[in-house]
Amino acid sequence: MKLKELGEFGLIDKIKAQFSEAIPENIEGIGDDCAVIHQEGKDSLLITTDLLVENVHFLRNDITPFELGYKSLAVNISDVAAMGGTPRYAFLSIALPSDLEGPWLKSFFDGIYELGKKHGILLLGGDTTKSLQGVVINVALIGEAPAQQIKRRSQARVGDLICLTDTIGDSGAGLDVILKKRTRGPLEDRLVKRHYLPRPHVEEGNWLSQRNAINAMMDVSDGIDSDLKRIMEQSSCGVKIDLEMLPLSQDLKLYSQKNNLSPLELAASSGEDYCLLFTLKPELLESTLESFEKEFFRSFFVIGEVIEDKKFEYYFQGQVTHLKKIGFDHFK
Amino acid sequence: MKLKELGEFGLIDKIKAQFSEAIPENIEGIGDDCAVIHQEGKDSLLITTDLLVENVHFLRNDITPFELGYKSLAVNISDVAAMGGTPRYAFLSIALPSDLEGPWLKSFFDGIYELGKKHGILLLGGDTTKSLQGVVINVALIGEAPAQQIKRRSQARVGDLICLTDTIGDSGAGLDVILKKRTRGPLEDRLVKRHYLPRPHVEEGNWLSQRNAINAMMDVSDGIDSDLKRIMEQSSCGVKIDLEMLPLSQDLKLYSQKNNLSPLELAASSGEDYCLLFTLKPELLESTLESFEKEFFRSFFVIGEVIEDKKFEYYFQGQVTHLKKIGFDHFK
Repeated sequence: MKLKELGEFGLIDKIKAQFSEAIPENIEGIGDDCAVIHQEGKDSLLITTDLLVENVHFLRNDITPFELGYKSLAVNISDVAAMGGTPRYAFLSIALPSDLEGPWLKSFFDGIYELGKKHGILLLGGDTTKSLQGVVINVALIGEAPAQQIKRRSQARVGDLICLTDTIGDSGAGLDVILKKRTRGPLEDRLVKRHYLPRPHVEEGNWLSQRNAINAMMDVSDGIDSDLKRIMEQSSCGVKIDLEMLPLSQDLKLYSQKNNLSPLELAASSGEDYCLLFTLKPELLESTLESFEKEFFRSFFVIGEVIEDKKFEYYFQGQVTHLKKIGFDHFK
Repeated sequence: MKLKELGEFGLIDKIKAQFSEAIPENIEGIGDDCAVIHQEGKDSLLITTDLLVENVHFLRNDITPFELGYKSLAVNISDVAAMGGTPRYAFLSIALPSDLEGPWLKSFFDGIYELGKKHGILLLGGDTTKSLQGVVINVALIGEAPAQQIKRRSQARVGDLICLTDTIGDSGAGLDVILKKRTRGPLEDRLVKRHYLPRPHVEEGNWLSQRNAINAMMDVSDGIDSDLKRIMEQSSCGVKIDLEMLPLSQDLKLYSQKNNLSPLELAASSGEDYCLLFTLKPELLESTLESFEKEFFRSFFVIGEVIEDKKFEYYFQGQVTHLKKIGFDHFK
């Protein structure tokens, strides 16, 4: 069987099966946004790592080096935020073509530096090497969280409301601008910026993780269509999403209208929004919404419900419906 | 300035300068084999990461997938061993061409699994993605060590003896077999195996780190010609190496003779032997040698001396001499 037939999640399942046997109780390995190492009398460590490959994850002619540095760190910060942690220590491995210019490199490191500084993250090490083809970047990030406050993909319960901390689809629209080489005005520039400079929801993740009202949590990286399947697998449940409830930005709606696209499809099946997806005890909706608004001066968004039946159902105007595109798999 | 002019170590210096300002006292960042995070009342964490790129670090047509998996982990284990730590948790990021076959992948993971199991290392996470060109592998490894037992590159003192835990040059000869496409007999096969399946010196590192007789320590990754310069920079000293004292294996000598190569040059300037380089208080040589031999049933090797003058001097038969090749820089 070739990798493209096995797929990314098939491969991860195989790795997980081979390497999970010896893992002791105080450690959580493959399967969530971060691995967790619990430590007696101390905060737990959250560890995540992400690999970005030129022409797979970014186009060097399009993304600025500042944006590339920034985003390489942002996607990892988002994984730590998704479990309610605080990002602390970063390790950067980069493979670079030897004709890269100094200003490019300076700007790349400035992107990492600026976002790292904002979150108090220390860059403590890494590896630098030559690449014969494109730029390859791996960031490993260590975060910390009190053990009792960590949220997981596996804690969703039947009846929970499924919620988002932000609108979704803007990043996917930004990618559409890039890939289709659309003429860029202010609207397109804003969407591209949402794609290249995502804001990891660290404050929201921290706030939500301190609340018993929240059961499961993860970040929106592959798109909710794909990400919710991870919640379903880990929590052994189904989900029912009301497409009319998906939070769409004004920019996404305008862009979709202008280019004859479905904003709902973009919102559900494109990824890299890096806001948080969480499930909430329904009886605590009102009180949680109220204190969230007090804290962040904006709302979160309810988009559906956790159901017992292990199905993934989209509803539109009360009827079951289907989306054309399916979630993102890195090997297809 | 282009990257190839700046060089790998120039780049690392620049990164270090930008990111070192905020690092608190309980943390050691860029500059040694691992970063160190000290924890109150607990062992310190040692963290290292290595990036391997196809056609830069390995040729997929030559290395077996088992060897590639094994080596990806081995080079990181060696960094933890170099500071006297015990390797614990691994995180693997891989970019894979989508036409890779299942058996290749299985064998790759078997290589990681076998070496990991031997050292009790748990694979806790990572990232998998597509590559449009070759295979790219990043391993991040977390180890542990009691704070007072950690050895560093920066602790060499004038008068220390410079020592190695094993012969050097075999791995370089193995690479020579591969790159020059030499006809392979049992001798060549053994050398290639030393290159592809290096044994990280974890037990030796652990044993040495517990001794006050040892001052500085690091692993031999780029070749002593290059690695000793790191000790010189970090310890503000010079080194004097007696080429006649370099420990050469019988295989290296035979191979060099057969192919008209200088075994001393191979030993000094080729890398990837992954044994340990350490500096030793001269008055404790005899007692340390004796207990090392009792523990490991073999000797370590003295190759030179730490000097005050910040020079790198090779001696041969009492005379200063020069080596043609210089140490390995990934960007040249």
